[in-house]
Amino acid sequence: MRLRLDIGYDGTDFHGWAAQPGLRTVQDEIEAALGVLIRAETEDERPRLVVGGRTDAGVHARGQVAHVDVADEFAARITPRRLGGVLARRGSADAVVHAVREVPPAFDARFGALRRRYEYRLRDANGRRDPLTARFTAEVPKVLDLEAMQRASDELLGLQDFTTFCKAREGATAVRELLGFDWRLTEDGAFAAAIEADAFCHSMVRALVGSVVAVGSARIGHDDLVRLRDARERTSRFTVMPAHGLSLEEIVYPPDDELALRAEMTRARRDPLSE
Amino acid sequence: MRLRLDIGYDGTDFHGWAAQPGLRTVQDEIEAALGVLIRAETEDERPRLVVGGRTDAGVHARGQVAHVDVADEFAARITPRRLGGVLARRGSADAVVHAVREVPPAFDARFGALRRRYEYRLRDANGRRDPLTARFTAEVPKVLDLEAMQRASDELLGLQDFTTFCKAREGATAVRELLGFDWRLTEDGAFAAAIEADAFCHSMVRALVGSVVAVGSARIGHDDLVRLRDARERTSRFTVMPAHGLSLEEIVYPPDDELALRAEMTRARRDPLSE
Repeated sequence: MRLRLDIGYDGTDFHGWAAQPGLRTVQDEIEAALGVLIRAETEDERPRLVVGGRTDAGVHARGQVAHVDVADEFAARITPRRLGGVLARRGSADAVVHAVREVPPAFDARFGALRRRYEYRLRDANGRRDPLTARFTAEVPKVLDLEAMQRASDELLGLQDFTTFCKAREGATAVRELLGFDWRLTEDGAFAAAIEADAFCHSMVRALVGSVVAVGSARIGHDDLVRLRDARERTSRFTVMPAHGLSLEEIVYPPDDELALRAEMTRARRDPLSE
Repeated sequence: MRLRLDIGYDGTDFHGWAAQPGLRTVQDEIEAALGVLIRAETEDERPRLVVGGRTDAGVHARGQVAHVDVADEFAARITPRRLGGVLARRGSADAVVHAVREVPPAFDARFGALRRRYEYRLRDANGRRDPLTARFTAEVPKVLDLEAMQRASDELLGLQDFTTFCKAREGATAVRELLGFDWRLTEDGAFAAAIEADAFCHSMVRALVGSVVAVGSARIGHDDLVRLRDARERTSRFTVMPAHGLSLEEIVYPPDDELALRAEMTRARRDPLSE
């Protein structure tokens, strides 16, 4: 039986999502909790999670999605409440499973996702440092022009080759469709961008924000950004933003009856490595 | 020379504001940092802070205010940047000094305050647990009626005897003026109350919120709350809310030319112990 898990975490004390030997990762902690619930006796018997957005070390999530296959007899044991209990006993209350539900076998958290939405939060030099939100808000030691940043963000929208903003991976395409890149002032006086695309290549969200921050601080001009975008090569004229300002907010999937077809299509087209 | 310090902190890992032997407190950390800047050779030589809102263990602050007296020759050394550097080296980046400015000798952070504003944040059983904001958001495992909570809060406004909501202190009055108690839904889906008064007695904010949450979860009725309020005695029909949902947001002081007179007046009237 295939289950969908909706997951959130404070990424501060995790070495990212993906399981790595000897490091504390979200995947490992949740797989260990699942293992307890199905009474796995060895690590090899633990259920394996397939995730919608593989986040880097320090990146947070409010809307992570994963799927897992378990024997029918165990499915009823896997509830948010029980998972929360096991995670708390393991000292991992910084991860939470919001919901568990059965999905069709064609549901694929990774290849079935239609689009992902991230939020990037930062304060500029005019902003008051706030210890309460410092774990998920980057600090930029320059004064930023929010309007210039929005104009710059608008240049990055649409179906494009994002090689300028992607860590190169042999044989993979950097063509993505950026569906939204909208800045706002938050209640607590930070700048936040909602960034949405069909998929993101590795470190792409943080590179996009870095390029726009470079415009907002007048380190590069608006036209420079357009030229860098069109040059389709990595550059040192802007930096990749720190991980802790980033949070995966939502992953959107098609309705259950379209699942099989769409997963097939996406898998054939490319390998959507996502931050 | 008297300096005013504007201070923020994540209270999670502090045993409250007030210095206590052997415990990590905000007062101790900032006094230690001041001691480094004025080259105090012993703990006794450290400047002593007088604070506007003495917060309990686990309570946060975005708008704490304190004053300190230092010899004129040292004043220029005490800057937010230098204090931040010393605090960071001490592993105390969870406290921040936003601003330092010279004030008249009549400025008194404690007795001169006109009013204090706190925020209490919570999620009810319908809210998604959010590891990113869990450090400063309480969880209430019931479904809450926000409209009923606002109506209940309105009953607590005005100049009243708040004995029902105060930890008794021999000889001190519990008469306070509650100036505002307004609930809203936050951007991230939590309930937040802005609570403002001339001053608060010990644990009063958290008791006020507890009483209103009891109404919101139908544990007590609206009329019960009014009766409890008027009974002017402590009760077990509602609970004091957890510390970590609370943050001191702002302390308002009069203009400099009214300072001396007002401090005198307040000191004569009562001892405004505040949470």
